[in-house]
This record gives sequence, C-alpha cells and structure tokens, in this order.
Amino acid sequence: MDYDRPLFFRVMQYADAADRDVVDMVSGNPDWAPPEALREGLREFADREPEAFQYSASEGDRPLRAAIADRHGVDTESVFVTNGTAEANHVATACALDAYPGDEVLLTDPVYPYYAGRNDLLKAETRYVDADADGHLDPDRVAEAIGDDTAVVVVNSPNNPTGAVYGRETKRALVDLCEDHDACLVSDEVYDAFDHSGRFTSALAFDSPNRVVTNGFSKSMAITGLRVGYCVVPAHLQDAVRTRHMLTTIAASRPAQAAVLRALRETPDAYYEANRQLVEDRIETFTAALDEAGADYTAPEGSFYVLVRFDGFPGTLENVERLIDEAGVAGMPGEAFGSSRTEWLRFALVTPRVDEAAARLTDYLG
Amino acid sequence: MDYDRPLFFRVMQYADAADRDVVDMVSGNPDWAPPEALREGLREFADREPEAFQYSASEGDRPLRAAIADRHGVDTESVFVTNGTAEANHVATACALDAYPGDEVLLTDPVYPYYAGRNDLLKAETRYVDADADGHLDPDRVAEAIGDDTAVVVVNSPNNPTGAVYGRETKRALVDLCEDHDACLVSDEVYDAFDHSGRFTSALAFDSPNRVVTNGFSKSMAITGLRVGYCVVPAHLQDAVRTRHMLTTIAASRPAQAAVLRALRETPDAYYEANRQLVEDRIETFTAALDEAGADYTAPEGSFYVLVRFDGFPGTLENVERLIDEAGVAGMPGEAFGSSRTEWLRFALVTPRVDEAAARLTDYLG
Repeated sequence: MDYDRPLFFRVMQYADAADRDVVDMVSGNPDWAPPEALREGLREFADREPEAFQYSASEGDRPLRAAIADRHGVDTESVFVTNGTAEANHVATACALDAYPGDEVLLTDPVYPYYAGRNDLLKAETRYVDADADGHLDPDRVAEAIGDDTAVVVVNSPNNPTGAVYGRETKRALVDLCEDHDACLVSDEVYDAFDHSGRFTSALAFDSPNRVVTNGFSKSMAITGLRVGYCVVPAHLQDAVRTRHMLTTIAASRPAQAAVLRALRETPDAYYEANRQLVEDRIETFTAALDEAGADYTAPEGSFYVLVRFDGFPGTLENVERLIDEAGVAGMPGEAFGSSRTEWLRFALVTPRVDEAAARLTDYLG
Repeated sequence: MDYDRPLFFRVMQYADAADRDVVDMVSGNPDWAPPEALREGLREFADREPEAFQYSASEGDRPLRAAIADRHGVDTESVFVTNGTAEANHVATACALDAYPGDEVLLTDPVYPYYAGRNDLLKAETRYVDADADGHLDPDRVAEAIGDDTAVVVVNSPNNPTGAVYGRETKRALVDLCEDHDACLVSDEVYDAFDHSGRFTSALAFDSPNRVVTNGFSKSMAITGLRVGYCVVPAHLQDAVRTRHMLTTIAASRPAQAAVLRALRETPDAYYEANRQLVEDRIETFTAALDEAGADYTAPEGSFYVLVRFDGFPGTLENVERLIDEAGVAGMPGEAFGSSRTEWLRFALVTPRVDEAAARLTDYLG
C-alpha cells in the first residue's frame, strides 16, 4: 500500500472533476448537522475576553477533560485532549512504541489506512492480523501473531471499513493478550455513537495499565473539521503523552474545545440517537437494494460504511473511477484498506441519496 | 535540560499558587485583544451549513492558503496550514531530517526549549551554536559547527528569548550555508509582527530549495489558543510535509482557520502597528527601570521578551520562586533556555503592569 498520498484524496478529486452528477460516498464526513449547542458554544466563545484566546493547558481545558472523564467514569488526569482522534492515535502509538519492548505494531486487515501510514512515519514494523469474513477479530489470531517484538496492538470498533463491533469478550481478550505480552492496546472508539448492534464495549471497561483508549467528537457530533479528540491514558504513560502532545501541537484549538464542552453539556441523547437511527435506516435502504442486485456485502453492526462485492467487478481504483463516470456513484477501492478486501468497494452512508446511489449501482452492475 | 515537563508550567503553577499578588511575565501569551474581524469570523462560522464543520483539505482551506501565499509572494501550493506554529516546526523538522543526510539539528543557545525537546522526540542529535552576547547569530559560528551530520538548522528571528532580529546578511548566509552543506534551514518567524528594529528579513527573501519558513497567527493576532500556523515548503519537500501533517493531525481546526482568514482580509495595518507600539512602549518602561536599578539586560530589537541579569542573583528556578514570593513578579529562569544564560531571567512583556513589575523588581533587588 502507498500512503504517501492517500487514495481518499485521489478518489475525491476524481469525483469532483467528473462531468456528471455523482453521489459522494467516499469520505467519512457526516452530512448531518452538528448539535445546536455546539454552534452556540462558538458564538459564546467569540465574545469572550482576550485571555480566552490564549493557549489552553496542553492537556486540554480542565472542564472539558472533566466532562470527558465523567462520561467514561475515569480520572480527569488520565484524559488528554488532542487535535482530533488522529493526534490521539499518533501520540498514543508513538508513546507506546517508546514505552514497550519491540518495534512492531499489530493492525487488522482490513485496516483504516492512516494507522499503517503512521507506523511507517514512526519507523515501526507493521504486522497484519486478518479479520474474519464478517469483519470480526478473532483473539486467537491475535494470540498467534503477538510476540516479543510486539509493542502495540491497534484496533478500531465499531470498525472502519468493516462495520464490525467487537464484543465484550474480544475486548477483554485483547487487553489480556497485551498484559501477557508486555504490549499496549490502543483502542480507537471514535464510532462509539454509531453502535447499531447494542454490543459495543469500551476497552475502558477493563482496568489495565496496558491499554489506551482514543476517541473524539468528529463523528458523534458531525464535526470532523473541528479537530477535537482525546485519549485516556494509564498513569505510567501520562508524562510521555503530555510531553509528546506538547511538542507536536502544544494544545487543541480553544474555540473548538469550548464548543464541544457546551455541546457535551447541553445536547440531549435524542440528538445522538436520531443520527444513529438515520444511519441505520440508510443501511437498511442500501443493503435491501444490494440484496435485490445479488451483491455480496457486510451488514455493518456499527459505524457508517458498507463493504460490497459485485460479481466480476473487483474494487480496484480503475473500477471506482468507472463507477464515478458511468454510474455516478463514488466509493472507495478495497485496496485502500489492506490486502484482504481488494475485491470489495466501500461506500460511506453520508449522503441523503443512499437510495439513489443504490439504484444507480444496481442499474449499472445488477 | 529536562523537557519532560517544561519549566514554563512549573513556574506558572507556582505563581498561581502564590499567596500574594503576582505580576505574570512568564508565558508568551499576549494580553491584548484579537482583531475584531477574528471574532466576527467565528460568529460567521457558527452559522454555516453542516458541510463547513467537516475536514478542510489537509493542506488547509484553500482561500486561507492563498491569502498567506499572497502575503509572502509565494505559490499557494507551497503553503501548508498546521495546528499552530508548533506543528509547523514539528513537521518541517521531521521531514527535513528524513530528506537530508545526517541526524543532527543545529540550534542556537539561548534556545526556545521546545526545539530541543522536539529533537529528542525525533531521535535527532542536537548541537548548539552560541549566540553573541546581544543575541545575534554569527554565521561564522554556524559555519564552524555545520558538517556532514547536519540535516537541519533551526533559527528564530525575531528571537525568543533574546529579542534579537537577524539582519538580511545573516539570513542570506544561513541559506547559503544550508545549500553548501546539503542541509535545510527551518526559519521560525512567528514574531515577525514584532520587529521594533525595522531590520527583519524573512528567509523567503532568498529563493532556495534548502529552506522552510514556519510562522503563524498566535502572536500577530494574539490568539495562541486558536492553533493556526503554517509552513512554506520547497517543492521537493511538499509530499513529505503533506503526508506527515495528515498522519499527525489530518488538518487544522476549521473555525480557527475561518476566523483567521476573515481577520487577514479585514484587519487594518493599524491593529498590528498599535500592538507592536504597545510592546515597544513597555520595553522602554521596563528597561528604563532596569537602567535605574543598574541591572544588565538585552534590549530587544523584536518579539516581547527581555533578558535581565541582576548582580548576585542568578536566574535559577529557586530565585524565580523567591521573586514570586518576595517581590510579586514571575519570570522564567535562564536555565530554561540553554546553558549560556543561566545567570539571567526572562520577562515577557505581556501585562499592562510592566511599570509595577519593574518597580517591584528594583525595590527588591536594586
């Protein structure tokens, strides 16, 4: 895989340049609205005294850290606010590589490609563990792969791109394996608001010095552009995380932190549930059309992606470009997500035109 | 030097906990107001459609990149918007270390301590070049130090902590030295709005593939908390910078980018000049009092810091704490800035009570 210029951008540029109407199902950008309290938080920030415009504490504004800690039932000291979940994953992976023996990071295949690119940047070795056909991760396969060289195991549930939600036993087993092998689990839970299965369990359910949880508000509040993420870090890694975060970006952007805090305090559960239900409805619409077309797909238990395989139409970049030009639907090629899904395409359900997209796909390929 | 937990934070915490009124001259946080158009930009952003809340291009919002490029007379493609000047320095240094032979980074002494900490994170060797007594950098000393192992030379002018503004000839010589030794100049120019000497020259004045310029709006717009910086990158490093930035934080926060863009477009020159003049007036007030007390100091040509040496009162952390408790003035110990200024204290002119601070210091030490 080549991560120098992620395929996302090539595909998005290609779709933008297309000489026809295209339903955009490429990116992970929600098309629904952020909470009203988030907008109100930005307006409120705009009127604040000059001091509010200066650096927050590097660890994040204290009230925001406290609100996050409260949500998860953890110590405020363990919460570090970062520039998006990306920086949380970056800092957590880098610090875990420094703190644990070995220079290998285990990832799943299919994989969110930024994890692998980041390992290259950090000069770590990447080893892939194949997920099951339905996207689940079998801890026995992790047990076979984990070894003395393994410093970090990065997992993502609800998963991008498979939509799999790892159950409680899987998370427990992953924490145990990391404890047994002197490694660190980095559990990216950024899609936790989009658990359609009711089976999601945070790695925070298992108290352990061998796990970091990363998360953020990009998906749950539909604000990928605000860059507010966080990691929950065990005591022995906190100084390293603080230092690395400080030397990488110093702190997260303060209007964004203030807006998220207000939204955390004032947004009713109904906001999150309505958006999750919207995605669930789109999944039903999209997969019903795929059923009709006889396509193979993974029904997502969480997140907002559907992996699809059309007979005789492998998920290459070339075929993705054909779908844009000839069917008017833009997805992502499976090759972007590792070596196990090169036959597949990923469609993000971040458009109100899911039914239109399904009709176009089935007309073209059905 | 120990960068695990910067001294800034220890001193600020100590000052906050003091049982008396303390004039805070510790941090580089301006106490003046951001441009009104910046506040207006935040309000405008708060009302935008949901799409505006999603990821900007990783390189930054195009209109902001174009406005920055226009300001400097460079190609828009060469401008990358980052999460503060800190991330610009982080990414530029890391990419230059990868691209150029050797693993050594030259820094000046006195030094802004985050540069040195960052080198440790990036597993680079740090070599210091002593600045002159007045804070200027003699290119002949850089010529003596630069060698086959040198991949990067990081300089900062107007300088923190010395206030020195390197002249045109120095910048030219630094670019030439980097060209001659297959190294990269990283020129941090974040204090360029605070040039009291009229001698500031950007490294962008010299077209060269061997220099990156980093900058941001933290100081010029008094918004250290918004985290909007940028780097101007030669063509051969652009792919590497794009990738590393993407894998570190993906993009900068979008409300902050929108606010800075509006402020760039609408803020009159008088805003910048008024704040620069405010600092110049504070410099005069503060140094006049130091003259009266017979203290030794470096009169800053730029930025907003004054290095001071009081006879028989070296700039140790212990003495900084004594000044907080017994004089009610908080500065930074010289040892935070390398080994050449351990006798000195740094005071940041970011308080309207500069005269009060000067009186307290001269009463206590005069």
